[in-house]
Formats: sequence, C-alpha cells, structure tokens
Amino acid sequence: MIKESTIAQQLDHRTIRAFTKQPVAPEIIEQLVSVARHTATSNFQQAFSVISVTDQAKKQQIAAISKQPYVAANGHLFIFVADQHRNQQIGAEMGKTENQLGGADRFLQAWSDTTLAVQNTEVAAESLGLGTVILGSILNDAQKLIDLLQLPQLTFPVLGLAIGWPDQAPQLKPRLPEKFVHFENSYQLPTPVEPQLTDYDAVVHQYYDLRDANRRVDTFTNQVQQRLAMVPEKRGELLAVLRWQGFLLE
Amino acid sequence: MIKESTIAQQLDHRTIRAFTKQPVAPEIIEQLVSVARHTATSNFQQAFSVISVTDQAKKQQIAAISKQPYVAANGHLFIFVADQHRNQQIGAEMGKTENQLGGADRFLQAWSDTTLAVQNTEVAAESLGLGTVILGSILNDAQKLIDLLQLPQLTFPVLGLAIGWPDQAPQLKPRLPEKFVHFENSYQLPTPVEPQLTDYDAVVHQYYDLRDANRRVDTFTNQVQQRLAMVPEKRGELLAVLRWQGFLLE
Repeated sequence: MIKESTIAQQLDHRTIRAFTKQPVAPEIIEQLVSVARHTATSNFQQAFSVISVTDQAKKQQIAAISKQPYVAANGHLFIFVADQHRNQQIGAEMGKTENQLGGADRFLQAWSDTTLAVQNTEVAAESLGLGTVILGSILNDAQKLIDLLQLPQLTFPVLGLAIGWPDQAPQLKPRLPEKFVHFENSYQLPTPVEPQLTDYDAVVHQYYDLRDANRRVDTFTNQVQQRLAMVPEKRGELLAVLRWQGFLLE
Repeated sequence: MIKESTIAQQLDHRTIRAFTKQPVAPEIIEQLVSVARHTATSNFQQAFSVISVTDQAKKQQIAAISKQPYVAANGHLFIFVADQHRNQQIGAEMGKTENQLGGADRFLQAWSDTTLAVQNTEVAAESLGLGTVILGSILNDAQKLIDLLQLPQLTFPVLGLAIGWPDQAPQLKPRLPEKFVHFENSYQLPTPVEPQLTDYDAVVHQYYDLRDANRRVDTFTNQVQQRLAMVPEKRGELLAVLRWQGFLLE
C-alpha cells in the first residue's frame, strides 16, 4: 500500500506554523532541493531558483515583511524565486542580448515553474514527517525582500516555504465541495453560489470554533467578501515592482 | 520505508506523453480532484478551478491549440484555471460589487493557487503509477481556449494536465546542478555561468542522443539561447488576453 500513502498524506495536508527546536538536517535540505530541481519545467527552461535564508537577522526582516513572527522561528526558510535572470545571463554570455524574458508569457512560465517546485518540495517535506507553511506574505513588501535577497533584474520572489518538525497538530481545514471547483467540458459554476454554500460555511465555522474558541469564528463566504476589495498598501504596488524587475513591460 | 517512497518517486519524475487505451477510472479522477482541492491556498481563497475535458471534439481543438496531437489521445485531460470569478460571484451575491480581484496581487495569488494544485495532482497521479504531462502549450492561443471552455471574466487557463497509464518509459531528464539553482541568504549565481555548464551540457546532449538518435541533439545552454527572444505569435498577446479577462488592468 506504499502507492496509496502519498495521496493519504496529501489529503491530510495542514499548514504547520510552529516547529520544534530540532533543526532540519542539511542532508534533508539537500534532498528537498533535489526534489525541487526535478519538478516539471516549462520548455526545459528551469526558470526558478531557491534561496535558503539561514541568517537570523535576515529571517527577522522577512518575518517583519510577512508580519508573521513564526517566519523567524525554528523552521528552515526557503524563498522561491521566479528566475529568468539565469537564462538571460547564459544568453548574454553566448552573445545574445535581445530577449523576451520579461514579457507576460515568459514571466508566467517562470512563475509557474517556481510554484510547481514549491508544491513538490512541500509534498516531499511532508512525506518525511516535516511540517510546512507556504508564505504568500513575503510579498507584503516585495521591493524590500528583493533588496534584502539582492534579487537581480528578471527575478521575482514568488512564495516562501518554511519547514520544520511540527510542534502543533491543527485540525484539517475543510475545502470547497467538488461541485464548486470541478467542472466538465466548460466552466459551469452552480449559481447562485452563496445559498448553496450554507452547509460548507457551517463546517468552516465549526473548524474555526474548534481551532481557537477565543477568536472570532468565521465562514468561508464571509472571508471571501471581506477580502474582495482588500489590498494591503504595499501589495498594491506589486505591478510596479514587477516592472521595476523587468517584467510585464509593454 | 513508506515515508521515503514519495521522494523516490518525485526524484524519478519524467513526463509521459503516450498513454495506453485503458481509461483512468472515475474514482481515481475524483480522488485526484480531491487532492487538488486539499492543496495549500493563499488566504484560504481557493482561487482555482479545474475542468475535465471529456468531449473528444474539444480535446481535438485543445490539441490543435497546443500543437501537440497527444493532448487529444488516451489521457484524461484537466485544464486548471485561475479563478477569481467564483469569489467575485459570491461577493456580488452578498451585495459587494467593488473588488480588487483583477489586480496583480490577487491575480498572482490565483495563479499560484492553481499551479500548486497542478503539482499536487501530478504527484498524486504518479503515486498511483499513472503518467502525466503538464501542458503549458494550452496558452498558445489563450483566447481560443477561453472561448472553448466558456471561461468567464476573472478566470484564466494556467496549465493543462493530461494523465493516463504510461505507454512509454523515457529516460530521466537531467536537471541543472544544485549550485546554479540553490543559494544561501542572497541571490548568488556563479558567473560566468555558461563555461561552468559544460559538463551539464554534455549530460543533456547525451540524454537527447539516447532519447532519439534520429533527431537533432541539443545542449541546455543552446536551448536557452535559442528561446531567449522566442515568443510564438499568439503567446505575445497573452497580456492583452489577461486584460480582456479582467486581470492586470492599471
């Protein structure tokens, strides 16, 4: 039943934000990076890189950017970077100066390559019993992170991934039922959606209630509508920073 | 040794483009979609959907878009879609008409949610012995695919994923050595890069040679430089189509 255990683990995925003091051994980090490197890649361009942030002062600064103190805590911190710089550099060394690496097509290819590698790494880590948290919050101040990690033109931070030995055992977070997510042959969202999500909202509400009785409990639909127009200040600058890095220029 | 088998499989990943006639059972499809649904998601927004393309005529049209005949062949074809439409719809039904779902921040969150789900699904499928091919080529004509799948505003096709029982056993494709991909504390590409890639280029050359002695064999650096300025016509329209769908507007 080895074959089935991967899926069982994937269905049991939960985000772990608290890690024990036991460090993740260097051999494991190397193995995880190897998994990342072996992820599928668009047109064999391998357009991502990964930075291990081991410097505690830098971790603190990234935690401040993320506004998540646990980013600076015990876990091993990877920052995954969409990377067309390496290919630009290779081309330049071979005498090719013109490129389209900053256009939407190549930018999104790099973003996809990077994100695929993040998920592959996460699954690998969890298969070893490690806990993980994917950090979209690193983009709360993209420019600061770019400066901190000295990211050159044609690179961009995509997601962080903190990994460590779990020091918590959260509940499984309930996901949207299949009929709202999986369609056949064309996009067919059952509408009106919201009234059909009553049962799901109740399950999500109960999840939050069990997770922390002292905090506000919430439903899925309420979280969606509350976030609709929410763009924290610096995240509103993302397109400008992308262009500063050489991406999505007209 | 169950725990280690996931990583062994991931390190052994290879793209499978030829599938046997044996269909993938509906229970497996449902299980794979369940894995996709349980993937980590940014701010719990679950901003992706997946469309199973079972209609043979549509598969043919997608194969034509992709310029890859095997897309229409025996595999089960998923199209993964970045989806802020569902959340916009939920909000609208709750009386919230203003949203920032088309901005760079929320667009990229959706793209990441979608891509993470693709990779999770791929790993799950491979754990069952299935073969997979991720299809970036669906974006060769994004507008045509959008029309074909009736994708509404605030959705966008990201990647296809074809899955089936393998009918080929390709070699493992060699990846860039770790030192060109994994850095510590800051971006530190070893430069000049190209002269340091001679050994890797030789390995890639040998890989292609073994794969098909009748075809042109190539190195990694040569593929990179050849693709630098390459944007097939319709892919150059990607940013325009993204805006047409409501994304990345100023």
